[in-house]
Amino acid sequence: MKRSLRQVKALAFDVFGTVVDWRGSLIAEGRKLGRRKRIRADWAAFADAWRAGYRPAMNRVRRGELGWTRIDDLHRMILDELIPRFGLGSLTEAERAELNRAWHRLAPWKDSVAGLKRLKKRHVLATMSNGNVALLVNMAKHAGLPWDVVLSAEIARHYKPDPEAYLSVPQLLGIEPGEVLMVAAHKDDLDGAARAGLRTAFIARPLEFGDPALKDVAPEPRFDVNAKDFLDLARQLGC
Amino acid sequence: MKRSLRQVKALAFDVFGTVVDWRGSLIAEGRKLGRRKRIRADWAAFADAWRAGYRPAMNRVRRGELGWTRIDDLHRMILDELIPRFGLGSLTEAERAELNRAWHRLAPWKDSVAGLKRLKKRHVLATMSNGNVALLVNMAKHAGLPWDVVLSAEIARHYKPDPEAYLSVPQLLGIEPGEVLMVAAHKDDLDGAARAGLRTAFIARPLEFGDPALKDVAPEPRFDVNAKDFLDLARQLGC
Repeated sequence: MKRSLRQVKALAFDVFGTVVDWRGSLIAEGRKLGRRKRIRADWAAFADAWRAGYRPAMNRVRRGELGWTRIDDLHRMILDELIPRFGLGSLTEAERAELNRAWHRLAPWKDSVAGLKRLKKRHVLATMSNGNVALLVNMAKHAGLPWDVVLSAEIARHYKPDPEAYLSVPQLLGIEPGEVLMVAAHKDDLDGAARAGLRTAFIARPLEFGDPALKDVAPEPRFDVNAKDFLDLARQLGC
Repeated sequence: MKRSLRQVKALAFDVFGTVVDWRGSLIAEGRKLGRRKRIRADWAAFADAWRAGYRPAMNRVRRGELGWTRIDDLHRMILDELIPRFGLGSLTEAERAELNRAWHRLAPWKDSVAGLKRLKKRHVLATMSNGNVALLVNMAKHAGLPWDVVLSAEIARHYKPDPEAYLSVPQLLGIEPGEVLMVAAHKDDLDGAARAGLRTAFIARPLEFGDPALKDVAPEPRFDVNAKDFLDLARQLGC
């Protein structure tokens, strides 16, 4: 194990794409809804469009064009724009609200729960997600994710990659930034964490966007760890 | 079960005295330290004095005389005042810091872990403690407390019984105040929660101050539940 990793006390996890398969889960929710409501839509394109709206919406908050807005509400604003485009106009208000809650029910990658349980024995496991607390708590309850503490951009009142989001983890856990290992499947997220002084672990997740050709999974020497999945991460951390 | 309790989705727990036995734990820590350092002190009086300093210190923050200060730091300020009074002057700085961390290692009451595990099957379990996040996370890890989410006055930036502290629970969980049941062994804590619109469950904990004569454990009809311990609470909630 690298010397820099011996002092790690807490692991902070990105969630969407790193812990859970947002794309596969949203496609499955869409198909189920489509069968019930007799709607034929391209649910894969719908999932991709929903996710694609997320970063621009969040950046409006980061730039101050929008006051603090939770992801649940950003997801709903994006969904409302997608309704006509994907022929979902027959959904009632209750069905739209329920569809928006699909983000609370995302399914973990195959290795996630087993890997987290191994990592939990030796480390404090925190989320550090742009997802709001309610979403993360409901998801954990639904998927059996064994977090020690649910931290979120909502608590820091700053979205990643603002440094305030990453730094809220060591501040709230009473430790140093270099004692936190940020775990994510996205290189820009890890670069943000490194700028704030955290350690970094990259997880490949080649199927995040469906086609492996769409995802950059090349290991990078600038990260403290490059791992295939959470079991590989546990092995590399000596858990 | 009372009608008002059917809509409860989350339980918010006071921690010191309600979940863990602060007094017994501090006395045990003091005795162990005393044996090692050959200090003879009245550790029960020491534990009581340390705890007695907590409310006045917190009220200085609530009144704005002190800026936001975490319980870890308030505990240390009180400890520093007690050092001469209890003959602890021979403790090194490292030993004082370690003694202050005794609050991170408090032991649960006998029924706490089993009761929480039963309650967790049907409800979201949150802390709502004046303890800071690091303290609550370390305590949970040490004692095996299965929280779904660690919430704290530190996140609300208001100490109980300020309404902002109680209201942070439904706000962060995305539910209504009346869907949260505050669980505490202290009547003033529950009265604060009720003023903020939460439901209330009183837990007796007759041994909190050592002598049962020192603790008011009489059931009160104004609380939604009066329970002997967490197993009794689980039974009354139909878990």
